[in-house]
Amino acid sequence: MTRTVPRRPAVRPRRSLCPVSCTLDAIGDRWSLLVVRDLMRGKRRYAEFLESSEGIPTNILADRLKRLQASGIVTSQRYSSHPVRLEYHLTPKGEDLRPMMRAMVEWGVRHAGARMPPPLPPRE
Amino acid sequence: MTRTVPRRPAVRPRRSLCPVSCTLDAIGDRWSLLVVRDLMRGKRRYAEFLESSEGIPTNILADRLKRLQASGIVTSQRYSSHPVRLEYHLTPKGEDLRPMMRAMVEWGVRHAGARMPPPLPPRE
Repeated sequence: MTRTVPRRPAVRPRRSLCPVSCTLDAIGDRWSLLVVRDLMRGKRRYAEFLESSEGIPTNILADRLKRLQASGIVTSQRYSSHPVRLEYHLTPKGEDLRPMMRAMVEWGVRHAGARMPPPLPPRE
Repeated sequence: MTRTVPRRPAVRPRRSLCPVSCTLDAIGDRWSLLVVRDLMRGKRRYAEFLESSEGIPTNILADRLKRLQASGIVTSQRYSSHPVRLEYHLTPKGEDLRPMMRAMVEWGVRHAGARMPPPLPPRE
């Protein structure tokens, strides 16, 4: 007998029409916004995300890139065909997470003992 | 033989000193900021959080209230002794999540098909 493991859908169903809830349905986890942060800081490639100091596991990175693309926050394009390799970019919807990211940086520095990072580069 | 299930610590260890990562260590999940939203909107009691339209499960609500208190974002005080019942409030650290919450509301309305909510009440 073959058992299929149900996979979580790449885009989570909405829990309500509250904008906080809808936003959390898209990026409410411990890792998605770290990938968005890396993209804002100019990282583009799978291996670059893996180098970040939080040590994102490869299976989580693959899952979050898939979800962020399904949510329209990230887009990808090939930079090599043999083998196929992809570069990732923020869409305008992803770029529009910058005010939230700035608010998180400020709160983290004020209240969570974090270090102030160097300023983010401007949008491309 | 008795098996003990290892419990997750109420405060997660830091993954790095990046402020985005430190913030996500505290509130990076699908539910914590919905409890914070409810507190900003004046909800105080366990039963009131359970009424919110996302339908937070009781075990998750209890866990998130415990974590938010351990992180210094929420505080509680008794309003009944027999039986013991608690009311919850945001600390100044929790109140300081308002700019992040506003940024999430704006992003959710612009990009996630959410409805604009009524304005948040001012701080108490």
